[in-house]
Amino acid sequence: MEQRVTIIGLGVNDLQASTKFYTETFGWTMSENSTDDITFIQLNGILLSLYPREKLAKDATVTPEGSGFRGVTLAHNARSKKEVDQIFSDLKNKGVRIVKPPEEVFWGGYSGYIADPDGHLWEIAYNPYLTLDEDGNVK
Amino acid sequence: MEQRVTIIGLGVNDLQASTKFYTETFGWTMSENSTDDITFIQLNGILLSLYPREKLAKDATVTPEGSGFRGVTLAHNARSKKEVDQIFSDLKNKGVRIVKPPEEVFWGGYSGYIADPDGHLWEIAYNPYLTLDEDGNVK
Repeated sequence: MEQRVTIIGLGVNDLQASTKFYTETFGWTMSENSTDDITFIQLNGILLSLYPREKLAKDATVTPEGSGFRGVTLAHNARSKKEVDQIFSDLKNKGVRIVKPPEEVFWGGYSGYIADPDGHLWEIAYNPYLTLDEDGNVK
Repeated sequence: MEQRVTIIGLGVNDLQASTKFYTETFGWTMSENSTDDITFIQLNGILLSLYPREKLAKDATVTPEGSGFRGVTLAHNARSKKEVDQIFSDLKNKGVRIVKPPEEVFWGGYSGYIADPDGHLWEIAYNPYLTLDEDGNVK
């Protein structure tokens, strides 16, 4: 089993609203292979997919009920503390729910959290110990 | 905000058991910057991190309670249907919980799901419409 992931799948309650969040609020571009039923966004080598939560549960043959903390977070590492601040400022202006404003954290980085329309948590962080290449891949 | 992700963070109940799952059962190699408190596994350009669930919630300043479907899945796309079958056979032999045995699915692929020790869902799939490069990145 090769050491890699292909897709991060997020179950969403309103596909249009979530697609708008990732394309307009985050400012990311949707892949052409997206349809009315599923949205794909190409990230660095992997895909983010947005798919109705009930359908995602059905696909995995599990019950869709669930609440509270999901035990999953996604992190977007910026290239500087200043960029973290800029991203938070921009997202706040766009009405995004700030879960934790960025602050210096114990491991030596600078990090905060925001929530997407379904409460999926994104950490926006700067980690001085992590080297990213030009494409943003971890080296 | 660059169109990319840096880390997929999974909250786990037993860090040792989860680390064993990803390193021995999946057969992946742990990054050297892992510690007794957090495990990092370098995937294709991004990191998978395993971190105690309570601590992950605390980091995000949210309550750790949560149950049921998380609305998040991760997909590992293999390079053929045969490879999907091989992975499922291998994981089953290793005692992994098979959530959905692989089958032909409506969108033209071949897919099933397994659960990690905390119930995080991994889809193992073959998608004939998705091109992967040598490193397994989506082209």
